[in-house]
Amino acid sequence: MIKYSNGKKYQKQKISSNKVAFSFSSSNRGMALEEDIIQSNEYYLHRNMALIYKRPTPIQVVKVDYEKGAKITEAYFSEKSATDFNGVYKGRYVDIEAKSTHNKTSFPLSNITSKQFDHLEQVINQGGLAFFIVEFVKHQKTFIVEAKKVIEFRKNEERKSIPFAQFEELGKEIKRGFSPRLDYLPFIEEINRNS
Amino acid sequence: MIKYSNGKKYQKQKISSNKVAFSFSSSNRGMALEEDIIQSNEYYLHRNMALIYKRPTPIQVVKVDYEKGAKITEAYFSEKSATDFNGVYKGRYVDIEAKSTHNKTSFPLSNITSKQFDHLEQVINQGGLAFFIVEFVKHQKTFIVEAKKVIEFRKNEERKSIPFAQFEELGKEIKRGFSPRLDYLPFIEEINRNS
Repeated sequence: MIKYSNGKKYQKQKISSNKVAFSFSSSNRGMALEEDIIQSNEYYLHRNMALIYKRPTPIQVVKVDYEKGAKITEAYFSEKSATDFNGVYKGRYVDIEAKSTHNKTSFPLSNITSKQFDHLEQVINQGGLAFFIVEFVKHQKTFIVEAKKVIEFRKNEERKSIPFAQFEELGKEIKRGFSPRLDYLPFIEEINRNS
Repeated sequence: MIKYSNGKKYQKQKISSNKVAFSFSSSNRGMALEEDIIQSNEYYLHRNMALIYKRPTPIQVVKVDYEKGAKITEAYFSEKSATDFNGVYKGRYVDIEAKSTHNKTSFPLSNITSKQFDHLEQVINQGGLAFFIVEFVKHQKTFIVEAKKVIEFRKNEERKSIPFAQFEELGKEIKRGFSPRLDYLPFIEEINRNS
């Protein structure tokens, strides 16, 4: 657990996107999922198919030592109010939150902050396309789901987690490959065409 | 001048968006411009007109002290490869870079890094809308210009700065007000309608 500058506690998160270990042990799967998406985004960008960016981790800087070439000596992770990725596909705004779970039977909605839900609702209200990419580590399966389906589930269902079995009907499994590692764009194309 | 973690030198930049001084002295105008845009974005969001976000400043974290509640004790500003703001307007992806200049006669293109130019070209290639908001502090005038016009100027003209007088024809002056402080969205609407 780490303490945010606003006093809230939150799960320990990735330190720097430049320092990610390419480990496939399950404890690092959260980072590995992110790296897989970043690699896929590079693939799409090089082929002029889409421009999807990783948002920098928001950090509150408190002290900077300018005598040492602007070395930041005191700073804190801020609570994430937006999502992991956003960008543009065929002119359309695209927003993606990526989550990895070690849970076998379901995806706990507690993984998503209410600020993130608010953000995704705002994106949808403005006509953007919003998605979750959810990885079930134990099943070695990754799905892409429209955020609005997850939002509806959260509003209409009593349970606080989405069963693994329901992901097939809510979204689509993403094929894993060498390059792109996670070919999620065809699903975005499908949704973009129909909305 | 601050030193980036990659060894490059760059202009000293804003430390934290949460710590901005609301000063209207000209030395702080860069920050004030950013704050004016953030306030305008909040205005638009509350009225469901657009969702435009400030991108977090990219920071490379080197050391974290977890015993002190995840206090970051060593970190460096990374070179900005993207722009200040992005978001969604009527489903369309929107990207904005904001710049303030104390120059009276022209806007020096050296204010924009070539990585930022690359980014903006990529946005345009993917069908997104990309803009510069440029403030001439000494004239107390702020303009919004399509990024493609600035890119064309950079490619076709020999001079390394855009004359102040040319901003009226390249873009549009943004009216200053109480709320929103900088009503730039009508120009984006105009461009969105015609492209």
